Amino acid sequence: MLINGKHQQTIWVNEQDEILIQVFDQRHFPHKVEVFDIRTTKDAAFAIKEMVVRGAPLIGITAAYGMYLACIEARGEKKPNLYLAEAATELNATRPTAINLAWAVHELLSAVHKVKDPEERIKVALQKANQLKEEDVAISKNIGLHGLGVIKEIAAKKNGEPVNILTHCNAGWLATIDWGTALSPIYHAQEAGIDVHVWVDETRPRNQGANLTAFELNEQGVRHTLINDNTGGHLMQHGMVDMVIVGTDRTVRNGDVANKIGTYLKALAAHDNNVPFYVGLPSSTLDCSIADGVKDIPIETRDGNEVKYMQGKVDGEIKSVLICSEDTPALNYGFDVTPAKYITGLITERGICEASEEGIRSLFPEKFG
Amino acid sequence: MLINGKHQQTIWVNEQDEILIQVFDQRHFPHKVEVFDIRTTKDAAFAIKEMVVRGAPLIGITAAYGMYLACIEARGEKKPNLYLAEAATELNATRPTAINLAWAVHELLSAVHKVKDPEERIKVALQKANQLKEEDVAISKNIGLHGLGVIKEIAAKKNGEPVNILTHCNAGWLATIDWGTALSPIYHAQEAGIDVHVWVDETRPRNQGANLTAFELNEQGVRHTLINDNTGGHLMQHGMVDMVIVGTDRTVRNGDVANKIGTYLKALAAHDNNVPFYVGLPSSTLDCSIADGVKDIPIETRDGNEVKYMQGKVDGEIKSVLICSEDTPALNYGFDVTPAKYITGLITERGICEASEEGIRSLFPEKFG
Repeated sequence: MLINGKHQQTIWVNEQDEILIQVFDQRHFPHKVEVFDIRTTKDAAFAIKEMVVRGAPLIGITAAYGMYLACIEARGEKKPNLYLAEAATELNATRPTAINLAWAVHELLSAVHKVKDPEERIKVALQKANQLKEEDVAISKNIGLHGLGVIKEIAAKKNGEPVNILTHCNAGWLATIDWGTALSPIYHAQEAGIDVHVWVDETRPRNQGANLTAFELNEQGVRHTLINDNTGGHLMQHGMVDMVIVGTDRTVRNGDVANKIGTYLKALAAHDNNVPFYVGLPSSTLDCSIADGVKDIPIETRDGNEVKYMQGKVDGEIKSVLICSEDTPALNYGFDVTPAKYITGLITERGICEASEEGIRSLFPEKFG
Repeated sequence: MLINGKHQQTIWVNEQDEILIQVFDQRHFPHKVEVFDIRTTKDAAFAIKEMVVRGAPLIGITAAYGMYLACIEARGEKKPNLYLAEAATELNATRPTAINLAWAVHELLSAVHKVKDPEERIKVALQKANQLKEEDVAISKNIGLHGLGVIKEIAAKKNGEPVNILTHCNAGWLATIDWGTALSPIYHAQEAGIDVHVWVDETRPRNQGANLTAFELNEQGVRHTLINDNTGGHLMQHGMVDMVIVGTDRTVRNGDVANKIGTYLKALAAHDNNVPFYVGLPSSTLDCSIADGVKDIPIETRDGNEVKYMQGKVDGEIKSVLICSEDTPALNYGFDVTPAKYITGLITERGICEASEEGIRSLFPEKFG
């Protein structure tokens, strides 16, 4: 998608230097557009842990390239597979909620597992990472095309009035390689000439809505309005939202969806006001090993300072302001789980299904082993 | 209640100077504890509009003193009642959602309406404002005593475990004169030796939870944890909240409750997880002229910059940081309405009733004319 009118992806191999992976540093969006260099597995782990990159699909691809870099680092090791296993552990530990982090690491490990020659191993790893990246673009595109159908149906009932779509956090192209998951249908609707307007939840504590979603919608020319996380219920009560669409970090067998903290509250409001609530997801975020999402998805607790401080621009610099007393205790859960019963449908790269075991099985039978 | 260990109220007549009304300037809590001087009706209107003071009961009392100052200003007027009517209009226009702003202004107007002598009018107005203030303290205390009963019942089932209470925004003593509305039961529980712990919603956009509720709980020594507004649903899903209690700006005939934006979302989560959801309210916030709260309570739209900027302390100063691009459009509703069906009970100065016309009528028959 576009940054400053130029088509970009979120992660790429440097054209001059094949052992340099580059990403947009998403920590300073929208105030600064900067590139972050990943030269080692440790850099990749840092980028994921410190949220230089974020969003389940992009985390996965970054980890894949991190494993590619681990193959380079393992070149001189006596026990390269041990080195790779340790690198995998390090990468997996960075963000416990995102299931396709583990998936991507596993894909890379499997690809190189039996390759004995170090140079060949590096080559295979790079090919695999590139392949996963290209697949991710295709997946995002297909989610968009399937979701477009839903938006078209709503638009048909609105007699030329704009379709108002609420989203939480950022599941746009900045969370993937291109197009996005939750936002891909919106970009496809825009391309199809449908008048869309997006309500953007700011998404405390890290404000990915304000920083990233508003930014990428603006770069793409999609009409949008920033709101506080508290506002969506009121909008839905008053007919100002036609549809909610969010991303997910992990969707489990019964259709429960883990996503950014606060998603569950929006799902409740959507349910209470008969607003359709959709989740856009690549199948890499499906985790059919877990039966009950609310009970069993591990929820990451992050630093309480993310609650106590708020980052933004002041006097031309990016700073964090303290919003409470210094000694105020704070707790910071990164995600919550929305029960399947509040979800209208899962929009996947293979089509739309009900948020249930039956629904998921109908599109992804292979996930049930 | 306490500030720096000393008992204080939120508004008072200066001891040396009877035409000087003073309040704590709540815009810079918890970073600065400063006093704001109100010498004119315009000062009072400014203090309410700019949220130097906030909270429905305190807004009402500030407006009452504003009308007292109007009586002083009207001393030399040929048509003092016209002057007072204009002052009333100015004060009423400052915050459209808070019903007891209009109520307090009306009380003052009624008290002085037939007083011809200018000096006598001033005296009567001051007496009336003082009386409303003392009544507010008694009301808050009684809300606390009635709410204490609810907390005691929950504590009895917890076998010595702390009672976890979630609150949104600030309906503490800083929103009233003393004790508070929603927080008064908590302070009474603390005095009764019950182990309470409060989950404090930060309450974007103005963060009254982080700035005020956390501050006053800390000054009072009540255990608490600050959370983002997105977090309450997750906590309730996981049995970490025993009770929700909030304040209200206006409660109408059918029991619907207007309160700080985001309250409705917490009520939905409480309902979904069988967590009791109470509203603490002085009867001055009852507005039985409105039949349907969700449809008919006017909801104040505030400056979108409150969404785009976040105030806090940085480098020892209070500053606002921009959290999105400068050109991002933002919308800022101040309140939402929680339908009566999601409210377990209304805790009033006369006892606890169901959030319904029947319930309200049982305690306040005079409100139905």
